[in-house]
Amino acid sequence: MYRPFLPVTEQTPVVTLREGNTPLIPAPAIAAEIGRQVQVWVKYDGLNPTGSFKDRGMTMAISKAKEAGAKAVICASTGNTSAAAAAYARRAGIRAFVVIPDGYVALGKLSQALIYGAEVLSIKGNFDQALKIVREMSEQYPVTLVNSVNPYRLEGQKTAAFEIVDVLGDAPDWLCIPVGNAGNISAYWMGFCQYHQADRCTQLPRMMGFQAAGAAPLISGQPVENPETLATAIRIGNPANWKKAIAVRDASQGAFNAVTDEEILAAYRLLASQEGIFCEPASAASVAGLLKVKDQVPTGATVVCVLTGNGLKDPDAAIAHSNNPLKQCIEPDIEAVAIAMGF
Amino acid sequence: MYRPFLPVTEQTPVVTLREGNTPLIPAPAIAAEIGRQVQVWVKYDGLNPTGSFKDRGMTMAISKAKEAGAKAVICASTGNTSAAAAAYARRAGIRAFVVIPDGYVALGKLSQALIYGAEVLSIKGNFDQALKIVREMSEQYPVTLVNSVNPYRLEGQKTAAFEIVDVLGDAPDWLCIPVGNAGNISAYWMGFCQYHQADRCTQLPRMMGFQAAGAAPLISGQPVENPETLATAIRIGNPANWKKAIAVRDASQGAFNAVTDEEILAAYRLLASQEGIFCEPASAASVAGLLKVKDQVPTGATVVCVLTGNGLKDPDAAIAHSNNPLKQCIEPDIEAVAIAMGF
Repeated sequence: MYRPFLPVTEQTPVVTLREGNTPLIPAPAIAAEIGRQVQVWVKYDGLNPTGSFKDRGMTMAISKAKEAGAKAVICASTGNTSAAAAAYARRAGIRAFVVIPDGYVALGKLSQALIYGAEVLSIKGNFDQALKIVREMSEQYPVTLVNSVNPYRLEGQKTAAFEIVDVLGDAPDWLCIPVGNAGNISAYWMGFCQYHQADRCTQLPRMMGFQAAGAAPLISGQPVENPETLATAIRIGNPANWKKAIAVRDASQGAFNAVTDEEILAAYRLLASQEGIFCEPASAASVAGLLKVKDQVPTGATVVCVLTGNGLKDPDAAIAHSNNPLKQCIEPDIEAVAIAMGF
Repeated sequence: MYRPFLPVTEQTPVVTLREGNTPLIPAPAIAAEIGRQVQVWVKYDGLNPTGSFKDRGMTMAISKAKEAGAKAVICASTGNTSAAAAAYARRAGIRAFVVIPDGYVALGKLSQALIYGAEVLSIKGNFDQALKIVREMSEQYPVTLVNSVNPYRLEGQKTAAFEIVDVLGDAPDWLCIPVGNAGNISAYWMGFCQYHQADRCTQLPRMMGFQAAGAAPLISGQPVENPETLATAIRIGNPANWKKAIAVRDASQGAFNAVTDEEILAAYRLLASQEGIFCEPASAASVAGLLKVKDQVPTGATVVCVLTGNGLKDPDAAIAHSNNPLKQCIEPDIEAVAIAMGF
């Protein structure tokens, strides 16, 4: 459907898991917190085949790697990229090496990399160090780099912007998006601009990027040596797409803001318990950010918040941060259950 | 799209998370194991909003419960139903009570029920006991039962059959499906039959149901008092839809077979590491079953295997049963990583 907008030819062996086409879901509870006839949707990209937006770009990166004859790919990852790289590479019959930071990858993501058949290397360092290593590896060894510095990744990821316009009939007024390595915000902007040039939308959104307060180099203006946040997917101190992201912010008359882990968790619980939508903590940064700057949203505006990853990627976070009761060891009879229910 | 086939009216307050429309993915590695020009697809229903096929039915059950003025719903669950019930009920502003068997619900599913805001009651008993209790609860207290004995559930679930026909252009020759409580096989058959009557397909599939060997009452012909299998989603000894399932098998000239946990795990690993598709262990029973009876598949037949739930529902299973290496505590420098990679 979007093939005319993508750098594939008849020679490209397309490696696909039918990614994309994820739901744009109305979020009335979030809209109610803002009021003033603001309409809010969430783009639930956690329903991609490996559970995150990374699949949109990885289908492109792996297809082009296969076209070029690659036998192995490599990436650094906080978890989502490694899951996507592993799935698509293995489907293509290519080896997948993934380099992750020891102890900072959510359980679900680690389970994915392993079961998809990646060769997982966990280093005593953070994402930024892992990215530096894999960049060098790809220069010195016969392995293709599939991090978002690979241009095909952002080409694929831009399709999410196309889908939003196709559902809404135009671009939204605001796009709220979590920012870690800053590839996705760049990809969305590329998508909106290409659709605008093709007369598929009449306007461009303000791009509102949100980083975790403990990993907010784009807000402070300098790299963060030891980034810390429970939103592990955006625990990045020196984004590879730094300059691109600043250019997007300025061109779109957007803004970048930081949200605390507490604000992220509040949005995470709100999404699950009122909208029925379970995302990973990093994804909730877009909603936390929107609520933080809600007074700046124009009356009657249309806002889309991007939810980048599935909540099932990080079950430990959900169990640790749920406010709801788990009543265990109840006798298996109706009286005991009725009492436990409060009847 | 499928509304004319569903029992909703203009008065029904539709509670939806944009469920359904999940991908039908070609499975060339599985097809290669069978040969003889057999074509295999998987219906990846793990990409529904809460990660399983249960969402298709829960949107119906909760919408109808809300239409009827319900203030609370209840279900017994091995995990997937509870996640779906919690998400849709909370989106509708309804309380959700879920009764689960102590220690036999996968981590991801438990995390979902809690974060969506269900009131979770874990009993010292198995699924069959939990179902008995919630049936009685719904008769004695003001709570609406949303297990698959609720007829709206199967009405919603039948849409998966519609989608398969709409993609393939006709019904497949075989439909392979895991069988636990036996609601889904009944729903698929209802869908195929309704589409056939509406002239949307020219044939009906043989319905091939697969149970885990340790929880296979439909194969042995008698309830299993202590069902045991690592495929927790189908760890059910006395299916509520027993008679319906037998009728489906006979009407479709299908068959039921049991697959061992080892066969399930082999299919689970094959799906992830060769097709790039991560499902929960119970889902892999459909593929394990197809491979077990592969000599019975007609040459050139079209086969669809249903993958009912997302692999992220059960990350512990993936980590425990992956054959792939995790190399930890590597020094963060290129030499150490190159050595770990085998260069």
